[in-house]
Amino acid sequence: MKIITNPKIMQLESFKNKAKHKSIGFVPTMGALHQGHLSLIHAARKENEVVVVSIFVNPAQFGPKEDLKRYPRPVKRDLELCKNAGVDFIFNPNPNQMYPQGYKTYVSVEQLSQVLCGKSRPGHFRGVATVITKLFNIVQPDRAYFGQKDAQQSVIIKRLVEDLNFTAKVKVLPIVREAQGLALSSRNSYLSPKEREVGLVLSRALKLAKELIFKGTKDTKKIVSAMRKLIAKEELAKIEYIEIIDSKNLKYLKRISGRCFIVLAVWIGKTRLIDNILIK
Amino acid sequence: MKIITNPKIMQLESFKNKAKHKSIGFVPTMGALHQGHLSLIHAARKENEVVVVSIFVNPAQFGPKEDLKRYPRPVKRDLELCKNAGVDFIFNPNPNQMYPQGYKTYVSVEQLSQVLCGKSRPGHFRGVATVITKLFNIVQPDRAYFGQKDAQQSVIIKRLVEDLNFTAKVKVLPIVREAQGLALSSRNSYLSPKEREVGLVLSRALKLAKELIFKGTKDTKKIVSAMRKLIAKEELAKIEYIEIIDSKNLKYLKRISGRCFIVLAVWIGKTRLIDNILIK
Repeated sequence: MKIITNPKIMQLESFKNKAKHKSIGFVPTMGALHQGHLSLIHAARKENEVVVVSIFVNPAQFGPKEDLKRYPRPVKRDLELCKNAGVDFIFNPNPNQMYPQGYKTYVSVEQLSQVLCGKSRPGHFRGVATVITKLFNIVQPDRAYFGQKDAQQSVIIKRLVEDLNFTAKVKVLPIVREAQGLALSSRNSYLSPKEREVGLVLSRALKLAKELIFKGTKDTKKIVSAMRKLIAKEELAKIEYIEIIDSKNLKYLKRISGRCFIVLAVWIGKTRLIDNILIK
Repeated sequence: MKIITNPKIMQLESFKNKAKHKSIGFVPTMGALHQGHLSLIHAARKENEVVVVSIFVNPAQFGPKEDLKRYPRPVKRDLELCKNAGVDFIFNPNPNQMYPQGYKTYVSVEQLSQVLCGKSRPGHFRGVATVITKLFNIVQPDRAYFGQKDAQQSVIIKRLVEDLNFTAKVKVLPIVREAQGLALSSRNSYLSPKEREVGLVLSRALKLAKELIFKGTKDTKKIVSAMRKLIAKEELAKIEYIEIIDSKNLKYLKRISGRCFIVLAVWIGKTRLIDNILIK
């Protein structure tokens, strides 16, 4: 496994592999890897000749009051996990290499970036779209792997790839959960044991929604209201949003139809958790 | 010479050439080709194994009150000129192929896009940056050729290429002028014979500035004021801006130093002309 910090050297390695007609699978991450990331890496390993994992806590996608500094960076452990998973290249640049002095270019995916998480995190998806454009140009992936945990992000990246004529195929893999239901997230490490307990309410609320739909409820207001009621029982939980939306354009749905996401963001103390399910 | 309208097919051809390790030279144009464009095509022909010229009047870079509809489109003549110049591929998509329904992604080069032409043409350089990002992903150029006529555009594209980690080398070639000094532009076709005469004042003003600098004038206010006086003599000419700026960051200079651009935009009747010189 090669560890590369310089973008130009990473790019050169990718061009070398492309010249040899080797397929490149890419898993962009912010590190603090968990089984969710590993499921992406395993898929990339299966489907490609070369696997690149980037570990980069991207400053451009953090708001000024967010947890950029505090975000976990267990680099040694991450590298070991990648090595064991058969990764070929780790791309681990520092922020100055990605955004050197005089940096000025940003990519925006309009509308899709303004709703849901984009409302409370202005600029977040601009940062995501920008870094993905850069990383795709550096890594030159044939396939790129993302988790459905960040449902809105995956929709935005699919749109970006199509709009900007990238050739990478975007693969979105299912959420990996702990036995009790909590969706894996690097930010779960912020939770106290008590908060972790409370955090289970997100997946419970999604389960409840699924049951209601299974029983025939189509009215999204009814479903959301039942979810709200369930979460309201937890004193430590504060709902940011619960929405039922079209899986492609992220638009609010009045009634369940087609492929839709049920998405929610809930604060547990000072930690913001998101979760979702896809209804087909 | 192959003429391609479908972005995916153009991209496929470029990937085929890349797989054969052939260098690709790219000249993005809006058609209505003149000797300025041809100088770019000749350079591309000299320095690359494959030459791609795009002809695309990009709606995203026109304001709602600008000349998108009226912009000249002498396609047959353009194709002949390209064929004679030894072009291998013409990429001539229609707007729906470049911006299909649901299109949402835009690229902005901040600060550099807000000054000079960006002031009177809000959104213009966002449209340019977006289409160049798309075209680079489609055409996969090793070298891309631009005219110094659009000095601000060339600075923005260089910044974009560096910021987004594109590998294309950006080449900026000198302005081509008519014998009397008028910088070639597809928009010169809008000028009446009388206006064409008046339009010569742009290059005369630049010549005057050059002379003043040659004689030792360093104070940019003095130079600009002399240029303004000269242009004011022409009743049909209305100055939009005259500025002396750093050639990299486009920042206003008080005194001539280093590499700088003298740039101006002047309305001749209903036609907006731009011109510039680079002072080394």
